[in-house]
Formats: sequence, C-alpha cells, structure tokens
Amino acid sequence: MAVGDVSMPHMHVVQGVKIGSAEAYVRYPNRRDLVIFEFSKGTNVAGVFTQNAFCAAPVHVSKAHLAQANPRYLVINTGNANAGTGKLGMQNAQLTCLKLAELAQVEAFEVLPFSTGVIGEQLPIERLTQGLQPALTSLKGDAWNDAATGIMTTDTTPKGASEQFELDGITYTMTGISKGAGMIRPNMATMLSFVATDMPIARTLVQKMLKVSADQSFNRITVDGDTSTNDSCIFAATGCAGGVEITTEDDVRYTVVLEVLSRVMKRLAQLIIRDGEGATKFITVAVEGGHNTQECCDIAYSIAHSPLVKTAIFASDPNWGRILAAIGYAGVKDLDVEKIQVWLDEVQICKDGGAAEDYTEEAGARVMSQTEMTIRVDLGRGPAKDTVYTCDLSYDYVKINADYRS
Amino acid sequence: MAVGDVSMPHMHVVQGVKIGSAEAYVRYPNRRDLVIFEFSKGTNVAGVFTQNAFCAAPVHVSKAHLAQANPRYLVINTGNANAGTGKLGMQNAQLTCLKLAELAQVEAFEVLPFSTGVIGEQLPIERLTQGLQPALTSLKGDAWNDAATGIMTTDTTPKGASEQFELDGITYTMTGISKGAGMIRPNMATMLSFVATDMPIARTLVQKMLKVSADQSFNRITVDGDTSTNDSCIFAATGCAGGVEITTEDDVRYTVVLEVLSRVMKRLAQLIIRDGEGATKFITVAVEGGHNTQECCDIAYSIAHSPLVKTAIFASDPNWGRILAAIGYAGVKDLDVEKIQVWLDEVQICKDGGAAEDYTEEAGARVMSQTEMTIRVDLGRGPAKDTVYTCDLSYDYVKINADYRS
Repeated sequence: MAVGDVSMPHMHVVQGVKIGSAEAYVRYPNRRDLVIFEFSKGTNVAGVFTQNAFCAAPVHVSKAHLAQANPRYLVINTGNANAGTGKLGMQNAQLTCLKLAELAQVEAFEVLPFSTGVIGEQLPIERLTQGLQPALTSLKGDAWNDAATGIMTTDTTPKGASEQFELDGITYTMTGISKGAGMIRPNMATMLSFVATDMPIARTLVQKMLKVSADQSFNRITVDGDTSTNDSCIFAATGCAGGVEITTEDDVRYTVVLEVLSRVMKRLAQLIIRDGEGATKFITVAVEGGHNTQECCDIAYSIAHSPLVKTAIFASDPNWGRILAAIGYAGVKDLDVEKIQVWLDEVQICKDGGAAEDYTEEAGARVMSQTEMTIRVDLGRGPAKDTVYTCDLSYDYVKINADYRS
Repeated sequence: MAVGDVSMPHMHVVQGVKIGSAEAYVRYPNRRDLVIFEFSKGTNVAGVFTQNAFCAAPVHVSKAHLAQANPRYLVINTGNANAGTGKLGMQNAQLTCLKLAELAQVEAFEVLPFSTGVIGEQLPIERLTQGLQPALTSLKGDAWNDAATGIMTTDTTPKGASEQFELDGITYTMTGISKGAGMIRPNMATMLSFVATDMPIARTLVQKMLKVSADQSFNRITVDGDTSTNDSCIFAATGCAGGVEITTEDDVRYTVVLEVLSRVMKRLAQLIIRDGEGATKFITVAVEGGHNTQECCDIAYSIAHSPLVKTAIFASDPNWGRILAAIGYAGVKDLDVEKIQVWLDEVQICKDGGAAEDYTEEAGARVMSQTEMTIRVDLGRGPAKDTVYTCDLSYDYVKINADYRS
C-alpha cells in the first residue's frame, strides 16, 4: 500500500533507552497496543505538541509534566485518543501516569502519557493500567521495532529511522519512530514521533534542535493550527554514550547532530506521507522565488491540500489548471501571475502564467504516471523557498475514512 | 444524483431580458454550449467576481467592461474556462465581445464574457464566434431553462429559481440560474450565476443588493480568496415592468426586493451544494454563540471543509470527534472548549466540550443516515452566529474528479 521504500532500517539501540510493550486490549484484542519508553536518569527531553484548541487530555498532561521535570517514562496507547473526553479523560491520563510512577518508583510528573486512535470515547482505564506491569517487565534496549508496530493505528507499516555517527572518537546513535496515516489534510492525522540519541546535550538545546527539525519535517507536512488533537513529537538525549555535553550552538558538534536529527525526522515525516491513507503517489511541492518562506509555504500547502490537484494526480491527469487555481487562491498578496513558472519534475507546464509553448500533454502525463514526482513553482519575486510533502487522493482514502470505526 | 428536490421551478419571464443559445462545439459536439443574455437599454447591472489571483481572462474583461458602462449583453460558454491562457486568452475574451458587439451593433465594452470548463486550454475561438449569430437569432424571453442547461459542466441538473412579487400594484419578477458542482472545497467549483428582475433599481443599489445577497448565499458556500478562477455572479435590473425606480435604501420597497433577491440567490447557492460532485447528503453547519460572525464562519468552514467529517457523514458514522477536531483547528483564539455544545439536528453529541451523557451512538447514527442534516455548534461566548452549507465526500467525488477530463 505505501509508496516507495518504507522498509524499516536496522534500528540501532540507543544507550539509556529501554522499551517495553504489552497487550492491554485498548480497542482490539491480541495486539501490543501499550508501549513504554524508559529513559536513564539525566536524560534531557523536549516535546512539541498540537496547536489544536481541542487538544487531547494526554497532551495537556504531557505539557504540564514536561514543564516540571525531565520525564523518565513515556507511556503510549493506541486504539483510543483520549480526546474530547472531558474531566474523566484528564483523570484517566493522570491516573495512567500515577500508576506507572508507582510501579516504576518515580514521581507521576516524570511520566508523559500519549494516546492515539478514536476521538470522543473514554479510555478502558482498568485494562490499560493492568498492562503497565507487563510492559515494564518487558523493558529492553532492542525493542524499537516493537514500539514502531505498537503505536500504529491505520498505518499499514511501522515507521522507523536510525543513524550512527562518530564525533571525537565516540559512536553515537540517533533512532526514532513515527505513526500517522490520515493525510488528505494532515490535520486529521494523529502524528506521534519519538526520537532519541545517546549523545549528551543540554536541555535547552534539545528543545531548540527539536523545534528546528520539526519545522523542516513534521511541520512541512502540516500547517500551524491545522493539527490533530493528539500530535506530539518527543526528542530525548540520554548522554549515555559519553563525551562532553553540548551546551552551546557554537559547539561544532551541534551542527552535526542537528543535521542527523533533521534527516531522521524528515524521513519519519516522509514515511507518514508515503503511508498516507489511500496514497498511491508521493508528491514533493517545492515553491521558490518568494518574498519569504511564509508565502512559499502558503502556496505549497494550498497545492498540497487541493483535493482537485490530488485527485488529478491519482488519475495521472496533468490537469495543471488545478495547480494554477490552487496557487491563485493561496491568499498571497500582489501575486504577479505573469511571473509564475510551474514544472512537473523537469517538464515546464506553465511559463509566465500561461501554458508553456513546448508543453505537451504526453510529457505531463508521463510525469504524472510516476509514483513519485515534484511540483515546482517559481513565483519570480524573491529569494525565499520552501518545500512540503503530500500524497494523492484516491478511492481508498474515502473507503478507509468512511469505514474507520466499523 | 442530486440531494433532495432540485427540480426547476416555473421560470417566469423577466421583461427586458432575452436569452439565446447555440451549439458552438466548444468542447463537445451537439450541445448548446453558448448562451447569450440581452438586456434592454437602461438595465442596471452589477457583478461580483472571484478573488483568485489567477482569475480567468473573461473575469478581467468583465470587470473592466462593467466599470465602463452597463452591459447590454452577456456571452457565456461552457467547456472551456479560458483561464491560465495568458495573452491569447485575453485576446480571445476581448474578441468574443468585439464580434458580438459588431453583430448586435453595440460597443464591445457593453458585452461581458463568461467561461467555465477546463482550465489552461485556449478557446476554440473560431467555432465560438461562429456560434454568436445563431445564438443572437434565437433570442427570446422564455428561454431561462435553455440557459440553465447551456451553462452546465459537471452539474447533473440545471439550476434555477424564480419568484414573482407585487408592489404598488405592479407584478415584478426575479428569476435566476446558477451552475457549480465541484464542492469538496468550494474553491474548485466554478460558480456562475445570473439573476435578473424587471423592477427599476438604481445602479448603486443593484450593486449593494448583490453584495449583501452574495454574502448570505454564494459566500456562505465559499471562502474569501478560496474561489475558482472564474466565479462570477451578475444581477441585472431592467426596470421594464415599470414603476418608480428605487434610488434609496430608505424606500420601503428596497427591503422587500432585497429579501426576494436573497431568497432566490440562497436557493441558487444551495442547489450547487445539492448537486455537489458525488454528494449524497446536504449538510447545514450552523455556528452560534460566537464573539463575531467571522469566528462563527471560520469554525463552520473548518467543519464543512474537513474531509474526515465529510467521509464520516457519507458513511453515516456519527464520529463526532472529527467535528470537535475541526472546531479545534479552525484557528479561533482563546476558545474555551468546556463551553462548547454540538448537536446533530436535535441530538446533542457534545456537552461542555465532552461527550453528552445521554448521547447514544444509535441516536447519532439515525441523524447521520438522513440525506439532510444540521450540525449545530454553540461556542458559548457571544451573540454572533452564521451558517454555511456543504455536502459529504463520497467515492463518486474522487471518481468524477479523477475522470473529469477523460
């Protein structure tokens, strides 16, 4: 189902991170739907969360706990989002933390809860908390694959990325997982992602690196304010591989690690698109020549969100008028349409706001029939550029979302 | 295919308006794809047009001509939108006006051109202009049904509304037609609408009444800036039924006529939704209790645009969490989710931001299985309210839009 190579790489163990899972029967029996991360003491942790006003109970609790201390545990359930669940939902998220804290002998605020699945139903809190001890008992370093599988909802494949890099003679690891799937507009996907390294990094920099990398990855498949109730991304640096802690951006290692993190997160974000609900094609929308990156993003998202563009791509139909229309309604002020160029891969379809003279339907259709393509737009009015990633809109998207709860 | 009663009413003749049509073979043979309106001298005409930066050549020309004088003729072709067609497209739109002006012995600026259909292809200008004389020859008052049929694209049914009303002993008529169809987000629909009355109304008031009525009708199924390349709505007052011209809003007749116009335009707008591509259900989204109408609209559109909400409605699945999520990402500041109530018709699904205690899936599913329903949201923070109209998202939407050009 997924587009292109989405196979799991070898998931290198991150020193200082242990992972456990259990069957808690949150929604379906016989699946390991409860996952726990344990971080060694001294791990610095940062998070970015959904901007949705209806953010889920676990998001409220995770934000509050993160503000108090570095967490020692993450507890993640799939099958139920614990969103739109009112006071009882909050109590259940807190209770989950409390129960795990008791079992693991830490403070409740050292546990962050995460949930994904159906919105508006209460967690089966007894079954969930009964799964905590078995999950704790199963903790081990080499379980990233189990975690990637455990957090899936409508995902058709587990999603992982892992790299090793050497600095000052020490081999460090950066490993992460993600889940997503709903993708016609990314706001409906619940995206969860958990990334960890065993490099020592100061907490403020962990937060900064996460923000920068999220803006190039998960925030390039979604729009500010256009997020689900549960979207969360966590980055943890355990420091367990040794070496001197990075405490400033001026440290030459900072740039190296940031690049690795950004690459890992971009891969994790792109995997969500490649496994988008009903996706048959992976589309890069690259907009250049803008006054600023905001307007490049606005236009890229306008194209990437257009159901008419997405259905045309599904049909391998180079109906480029739909792309022009999407550029035109992006809300960018004073757009001079006569300076706009549009390409499908290397085929120029629009020149100076009109049809490119040497464009042929055959050339357009050839690109459109590929499973991966780039829609490139040059606004011809500045130096800024930005890129977003999306997928097409197929019959299966409707089928999956019409059937999701049955 | 269309939802509910979309049958054409008796289309009362508007004195001072004649309509002709011809087969011009713009895209398909054997259909009357060219329509001409003739207004008697002295008719006051106003227009509202798309905000899309890539607005089509005929929109540029119509706006320029309207600024110069009251038009005597409208010329409308279906099959080709003449959008994204550069300088040649502009020349073709102007040439169409010029040719019709020559034949009808008026000035070119007294003709407004309109096009709808595929974007990015040049008009078959010779065939189109050859159709002008036959269309002129066929002019007659009683041809609103022909016009409604002539301007259709993926519409499955012609769309019309017509009323008569009496003022000061004179019987006046208000008759109009519209076309639309693409509706997952209304920005993709090319909406055209032409409404005329034989009442005498000053031109400034014709413009004002059109703006007010559009804001309650066509602008409640679309978003500012979220419009197609060709959207246009024209209102003409011929004055041919006699009586004293309305020259001020203080004239008691102004309110009466405005009500009739608004009702006719709302019907024409709703017909577009009822015939939305692949639509199986007609959905009213009513948001109340807002600080102002803008935030009510923002939330209503967020729900109405959500593919997840629309697929759930298609599946008759009361997955109300998706409605909450759409409210949450609408971008309204400082939303207190604990004050939010949501109903499906009379069934309260969300109370104070969580599930309503006495809500049952059965009750929700019963409403969702209807072909018409209202999603009502109370934000609990003010006196403002607003309403938008939309349809569900079905397999057929994808099919129609994936196949549109084939």
